[in-house]
Amino acid sequence: MAAPAASRSKGGRQGRGRAARRDRRIGAAVAGPAYITRRIPPYDILSEEALVRIEDTSDRILEEIGIRFQDDPRCLELWREAGADVTADLVRFPKGLVRHVLSTAPAIFTQHARNPERSVKFGGDHVVFVPSYGAPFVMDLDKGRRYGTIEDFRNFVKLAYASPWLHHSGGTVCEPTDVPVNKRHLDMVYSHIRYSDRAFLGSITAEDRAEDSIEMARLVFGAEFVERNCVVMGNVNCNSPLVWDAMATKSIRAYARANQGTVIAPFILGGAMGPVTTAGAVAQAHAEAMVGCAVSQLERPGAPTIYGNFLSSTQLRTGSPTFGTPEPAVGSLVVGQLCRRLNLPLRCSGSFTTSKLPDAQAMMESATSMHASVLSGANFAFHSAGFLDGLLSMSYEKFVMDSDYCGHMHAYLAGVPTDDNQLAFSALAEGGPGQHLFGSAHTLANYETAYWESDLSDSRSYEQWIEAGSEDAATRANRRWKQLLADYEAPPLDPGIDEALQDLMARRKASLADEWH
Amino acid sequence: MAAPAASRSKGGRQGRGRAARRDRRIGAAVAGPAYITRRIPPYDILSEEALVRIEDTSDRILEEIGIRFQDDPRCLELWREAGADVTADLVRFPKGLVRHVLSTAPAIFTQHARNPERSVKFGGDHVVFVPSYGAPFVMDLDKGRRYGTIEDFRNFVKLAYASPWLHHSGGTVCEPTDVPVNKRHLDMVYSHIRYSDRAFLGSITAEDRAEDSIEMARLVFGAEFVERNCVVMGNVNCNSPLVWDAMATKSIRAYARANQGTVIAPFILGGAMGPVTTAGAVAQAHAEAMVGCAVSQLERPGAPTIYGNFLSSTQLRTGSPTFGTPEPAVGSLVVGQLCRRLNLPLRCSGSFTTSKLPDAQAMMESATSMHASVLSGANFAFHSAGFLDGLLSMSYEKFVMDSDYCGHMHAYLAGVPTDDNQLAFSALAEGGPGQHLFGSAHTLANYETAYWESDLSDSRSYEQWIEAGSEDAATRANRRWKQLLADYEAPPLDPGIDEALQDLMARRKASLADEWH
Repeated sequence: MAAPAASRSKGGRQGRGRAARRDRRIGAAVAGPAYITRRIPPYDILSEEALVRIEDTSDRILEEIGIRFQDDPRCLELWREAGADVTADLVRFPKGLVRHVLSTAPAIFTQHARNPERSVKFGGDHVVFVPSYGAPFVMDLDKGRRYGTIEDFRNFVKLAYASPWLHHSGGTVCEPTDVPVNKRHLDMVYSHIRYSDRAFLGSITAEDRAEDSIEMARLVFGAEFVERNCVVMGNVNCNSPLVWDAMATKSIRAYARANQGTVIAPFILGGAMGPVTTAGAVAQAHAEAMVGCAVSQLERPGAPTIYGNFLSSTQLRTGSPTFGTPEPAVGSLVVGQLCRRLNLPLRCSGSFTTSKLPDAQAMMESATSMHASVLSGANFAFHSAGFLDGLLSMSYEKFVMDSDYCGHMHAYLAGVPTDDNQLAFSALAEGGPGQHLFGSAHTLANYETAYWESDLSDSRSYEQWIEAGSEDAATRANRRWKQLLADYEAPPLDPGIDEALQDLMARRKASLADEWH
Repeated sequence: MAAPAASRSKGGRQGRGRAARRDRRIGAAVAGPAYITRRIPPYDILSEEALVRIEDTSDRILEEIGIRFQDDPRCLELWREAGADVTADLVRFPKGLVRHVLSTAPAIFTQHARNPERSVKFGGDHVVFVPSYGAPFVMDLDKGRRYGTIEDFRNFVKLAYASPWLHHSGGTVCEPTDVPVNKRHLDMVYSHIRYSDRAFLGSITAEDRAEDSIEMARLVFGAEFVERNCVVMGNVNCNSPLVWDAMATKSIRAYARANQGTVIAPFILGGAMGPVTTAGAVAQAHAEAMVGCAVSQLERPGAPTIYGNFLSSTQLRTGSPTFGTPEPAVGSLVVGQLCRRLNLPLRCSGSFTTSKLPDAQAMMESATSMHASVLSGANFAFHSAGFLDGLLSMSYEKFVMDSDYCGHMHAYLAGVPTDDNQLAFSALAEGGPGQHLFGSAHTLANYETAYWESDLSDSRSYEQWIEAGSEDAATRANRRWKQLLADYEAPPLDPGIDEALQDLMARRKASLADEWH
């Protein structure tokens, strides 16, 4: 159950040649690596001394202010047993306790996909790009913004499956608002299984929905395999500042209890759910994330967990949240350093933007944010594709733009190899000064894999571009997602498994009255 | 003649408060720092061992292949005197010779502006953002693409002057094609002096034009001051691969002779003017740049010189150049490391793109490229604003988008301070868990300077944005450059100096017959 596609990928360079591009264009076969193994180091932005100041602040927050755990008595009991100071629902942590609890969490783990060639590794030098998560609206250039439906949900699962530059099917790629709130988790998990063969996230909106998600995974992978391996994960947010509510902790515990993964992500809008200063917001998030990850270890030591973060800023004149801005970007780099010192897998940043269109602002902000993700050493680059309007919308056009940028980032993460062929002394020696290299032996031997090529960017001459209709990037993206959906072919699924899943869904749905909020 | 505006700037954070924004909007007063002093380290992407492999390859190129110097016998003579092996116009360099010649070049120097508060420092932790350079066309959303004119040239000088996030007026911000080729350098230099008070670049298209540029600078600063201080620089490209032609070397020598600055930039389209592999293109560029900088030192030891680079890639299916792609970005990070080992100021990267419109592609590619610039440790971030269509066009809309992104980068380069106020323990202690921080004492004390705010990005709610006309970024940028030009007020210029400049121009123009190519 290793990841052979990844080992073939040579650091993400697989699928960069002509043959791979041709395969991609056929549509059905997705010829990207299972995940990336980075060949460039993370970027350490802060000094040791500065990091220690932040860590000390997080420790003071935990010891002196504490974290409130709402409506989950078992969680309080677990903390009391671990040695924390519990007063009503407020937990204070003696220095070193949380780090001690975290010491059982794995530094690297595999999340298995139903197609074993698409299993992903989290931690270390591994990088996994995943679609955006949680938007209530969807948006495209034809129909504008509207509430997401299960059809939209399926479309985004299909678009993610069709991209060679995404590695994971994600979770709530958009809210399927046409399905009752208490039943939509079933349709979401089913759609990930049915329309993709990649790893996916389950529900976290209630403990029983988390358990349903895990149960569906058992039907796919077998109960015994699931007991020993991570096949599904839940992504939970802290109720910042400094509150973990029952929805989150009960989901964390449900996934951990089943030996499944958790992704722990404080979501701090600076000036609202945390301090307006970056170091302060990071110190708070560090405290919150450590504690969230630790809950998984209290429930089941050794359960896989990912330390996450979702920093943003606020336009303080208006109170509007802002995304893809510089302060959260540099803050994310600090988060990466803090996480490496814990030796945990990292979720960080993504293709953030506050723009309402797939325009210049959108990709400027997203590129900033994706750079922060990649440079921070993130293992799980959350919200990598589709994020628009401050996460209120999932955009069809931006989804394909962002996936394309993930391809760009594959080449970036491959770094600069310096073997003799790459150093190319012979290429210059062949012709000498003044001789262009178009036809040189070195160029001919290397040009097919030399540069990553975008399927979306236009690099033709101005005249060719005018002649072809002078389209902008958004128009090309509009055409591309429609083509990808038209070309989509579902990966095979064992009919027995499909039937069992549909049966479980039908039974669960029949047992519940529809709830719409 | 220090830079008081910069020392007031606290790492680029000046001008981020409300008052500064109000000032900016008034138009005339430009309230940005003179330049940035970075508070984040450069990003070291390669190991020592890999860097040495590249350096060794550059040394082999210099020693075994050599560099051709065309039509500049004095330059060959200087190299012969320095100990190089000169055969006809081919020069080979014994190992260590070029580095030895470079040892007299200053690690840090000041280029003086006619407004002393706007003088800039190159080298060390200093960063200078400068408009794009050399496009024959200009472009805006109203009139599309057309050849640049002197009016366009003046407009871009004015727009650069109006931006608080640019630090330098640049050189050939566009080609003023309505002025004869052999006279336009006079109008260009005059426009920089007349319509801005920032530092600028002079002509390099012929030795006498370089000398005219320096002579005009003498009229502004006084001949004695110019003999002792850098007030003008020439930016030259290598005729890659491995050729320095007379236009370049005679200009380098003209600027160096007058103790003025040179910016030395190999321009390598991978697969054409250099190897198709990144390590190879970097090794070649390193050899070419070291030699170009060394020419300035042969002419006058101690003359200021900037080690530059302009990497791009090629779409090898079509032969089209591509800009803002991942391989040149990571290559630029390597260039930064190589330059730091020479202890020279660095010019690197900019807001590159191959897009023909100020759209999502344009800013995605530019953000990649500007990140490479900033992370490489570039001191002179060339082509920071306006670059469109692979440098064929200077775009009015993209100019204001890019300047705005330079503001974004000011905040990025300010990093993450970790003093007690920034760590904000008191902010969380004040309210405790679950208490939002909008009204906290810490938020109130810090919100004015907390986040950099774009003048161009829209972060309003979807409903507000729809109500305001649902404009995209390009439409906002179109309105903004027109407003900036309407609000423009020229900085004062001593009438005696103005008259002397006009007199020199008139005399020079009268002495030459118009040449149009």
